[in-house]
Amino acid sequence: MLLGCYMKKQIEMAKTGRITKEMKFVASREDISKTLLCEKVANGEAVIMVRDGHKPLGIGKGLKTKINANIGTSSDVIDVKAEIEKARTAEKYGADTISDLSMGGEIDQIRKMIMRNVSAPITTVPIYQTVVECGSFKETEIDDLMKMVKRHVDDGVSSVVLHVGFTLKTLRTLRKSKRIMGVVSKGGSMTAAWMLEHTRENPVAENFEEFLGILKRKDVVLSLGNTMRSGCIHDRSDKPQIEEIKRNSELAKKANEFGVQTIVEGMGGHVWINDIEPYVKLHNKITGNRPLFVAGPLPTDVAVGYDHIAAAIGGSITAGAGADYLCYITPSEHLGLPTADDVREGVVAAKIAAYVGDSIKYGLNKRDMELAKMRKHQDWKGQFRYALECEKAMKIHSRSKSSKGCTMCGKYCAIEVMKKFLDDKYQR
Amino acid sequence: MLLGCYMKKQIEMAKTGRITKEMKFVASREDISKTLLCEKVANGEAVIMVRDGHKPLGIGKGLKTKINANIGTSSDVIDVKAEIEKARTAEKYGADTISDLSMGGEIDQIRKMIMRNVSAPITTVPIYQTVVECGSFKETEIDDLMKMVKRHVDDGVSSVVLHVGFTLKTLRTLRKSKRIMGVVSKGGSMTAAWMLEHTRENPVAENFEEFLGILKRKDVVLSLGNTMRSGCIHDRSDKPQIEEIKRNSELAKKANEFGVQTIVEGMGGHVWINDIEPYVKLHNKITGNRPLFVAGPLPTDVAVGYDHIAAAIGGSITAGAGADYLCYITPSEHLGLPTADDVREGVVAAKIAAYVGDSIKYGLNKRDMELAKMRKHQDWKGQFRYALECEKAMKIHSRSKSSKGCTMCGKYCAIEVMKKFLDDKYQR
Repeated sequence: MLLGCYMKKQIEMAKTGRITKEMKFVASREDISKTLLCEKVANGEAVIMVRDGHKPLGIGKGLKTKINANIGTSSDVIDVKAEIEKARTAEKYGADTISDLSMGGEIDQIRKMIMRNVSAPITTVPIYQTVVECGSFKETEIDDLMKMVKRHVDDGVSSVVLHVGFTLKTLRTLRKSKRIMGVVSKGGSMTAAWMLEHTRENPVAENFEEFLGILKRKDVVLSLGNTMRSGCIHDRSDKPQIEEIKRNSELAKKANEFGVQTIVEGMGGHVWINDIEPYVKLHNKITGNRPLFVAGPLPTDVAVGYDHIAAAIGGSITAGAGADYLCYITPSEHLGLPTADDVREGVVAAKIAAYVGDSIKYGLNKRDMELAKMRKHQDWKGQFRYALECEKAMKIHSRSKSSKGCTMCGKYCAIEVMKKFLDDKYQR
Repeated sequence: MLLGCYMKKQIEMAKTGRITKEMKFVASREDISKTLLCEKVANGEAVIMVRDGHKPLGIGKGLKTKINANIGTSSDVIDVKAEIEKARTAEKYGADTISDLSMGGEIDQIRKMIMRNVSAPITTVPIYQTVVECGSFKETEIDDLMKMVKRHVDDGVSSVVLHVGFTLKTLRTLRKSKRIMGVVSKGGSMTAAWMLEHTRENPVAENFEEFLGILKRKDVVLSLGNTMRSGCIHDRSDKPQIEEIKRNSELAKKANEFGVQTIVEGMGGHVWINDIEPYVKLHNKITGNRPLFVAGPLPTDVAVGYDHIAAAIGGSITAGAGADYLCYITPSEHLGLPTADDVREGVVAAKIAAYVGDSIKYGLNKRDMELAKMRKHQDWKGQFRYALECEKAMKIHSRSKSSKGCTMCGKYCAIEVMKKFLDDKYQR
């Protein structure tokens, strides 16, 4: 019962003020009051992702910033072993959630294998597999997507992404806009192509309640996709983006009323750093502080090969301004499917961003002080214990032949040099 | 004459409104007016680093943010070939200046070898070699440091760091402070140890004019060291730091009056991200907007092994808030002497920080737009041309077996999927 209380929906329990075991677990992990968390779940400011047999995870306002790692095959690269390794790598280095975005190979099988190998909540984007299996946008019907969502839900995913917030009107607005990059959301482009091939309104929006019913059955969190995010920093927040956020906000309200917990994606992609804070504040205002999931954002387009570093800059500012959940970016972004090593780099960079973002939102963290004390005493094991990721640090330090300090300063280590002078004995 | 106009000092020429060839070169490279640059050099807001036979470099207010790479042997690791490789790597990947901080081996020889291998301005910290050659702080005399500064100046370095701004009083204040990490500036700890061993006031401060005379002779830029920077984010800006900035500000004024261009180091080290902007603004206010050189800063202590990423976050915000010159941090920071590969990672991370910082200070850069256009058309060569560093990107992309796009999305590339729908023809 503790971790798989699927009969009672978290948001419905919360609305009646009943604190679930999952809420207790999350509140304790987040070091906030159960009552406060319960209120936040009730009013949609926080969600609790559950996964049968695994620990629940809280995402939202007042909670620590979480990070997601995208993995999965593509139509070009299908290597199941590699994807499992990436999933394990992502979890090992601290991804809070893992999204399986597979579009190549035996997708059902890959999803199940990934789920067997990690305990983090799993998110999927069912439109991907739907279009792959239907063969084309023309041949994709709304029923196909519904069945696919049901399949993923039955497999036990914790969250699914649906692109509901844009309409044919949004696409018309987009055509008139002066955007350089157009649409860069894969799921968004697929949903749009589907609409345009069939010349019909967003079919997910038109059947929204049915989708909600499928998700509610297993208390699966709905993630409202951000299809209109900007693909370069010169494509600044425009009408299609604002329209989508407004629509997603209405949809989130509806989903919450229906009993489905909801995350709203937004403000991600490529964003001029000076725009980040006002955009995040606007987003939170429009959505009524619903959990904000952001991809990146990248504050520059020219860091190709190092986009994880650019995303760490953008992500920390975004989290600090009020985003709750960051999607990692790997060094392979814009270039190719990441390797396991790229996944590690991406996860650690995102963790740094989330950590720094939390220090903006919640103040200084004692963990930094603990590490500093270890550093002062040149206690290497102690430093590695408090490090966000210690393997790389241990590897670098093991190159050192220095007996006590490190090879950077050798015997002229400032801390060592000053030790006797800062001592009380010297003061007398 | 073009690049080695040492007879006339830049700041003296500027004060009389005369625009030197170096100013013309820098103004053109920075895309600002010659007159404005001349004014900034005259009032000490900008400096021009010169190096015989090489291109001059401008650093300061209104100019693009520059980055410095520290290299050099330590007492523990002496590998001249490796240091030359690091210097070449730093320059290749975009370091604007290189600091040779060697403390092991044939230091004179190493400095000369490095200078032969790169054309960037070179900075040194002469106290390092002085103490190494004297053998101990007890045996180090002011005359030894003076001779060493003269030796470096004669070798043609463009800038030297002197730790002049702190006094015995600062050290007393420091002892009373609640700092965890004490002094983490190597040159600062050495100068302090020297003072404390001899129980005397800062000898560089006491002989300041003589040092200025040595520097002025070859128009070498004085960098006023920041010895009291914080060594962990819980050691927040305190009395010793503020005292040193105030003292450095007076010294910079004096140096400028004497005819020596001056950079003031400060606000670096480890700084809580919420403190960065107010600290930088305070620093610039105290120093009268003199060029601000910052190491890092790191907004967290727990990113060990990934400190280049933490520094990219801190550096971008710091540059954006008004710092002019960032010292890179490599993944080896706090762990050991960096390798050439660490140098590349550190330089690129710092370049990203400087670039993003400039977008805060000066607005969006067209380079991002150019890259985005190439990305839109899947022109890979074009993207690599506009990338801050293209080798890693090319390597990652070469893993791709995709004919046109990349293996991330394969045939479901959002840009490709949307192409026909955003086209005018489809609109009709």
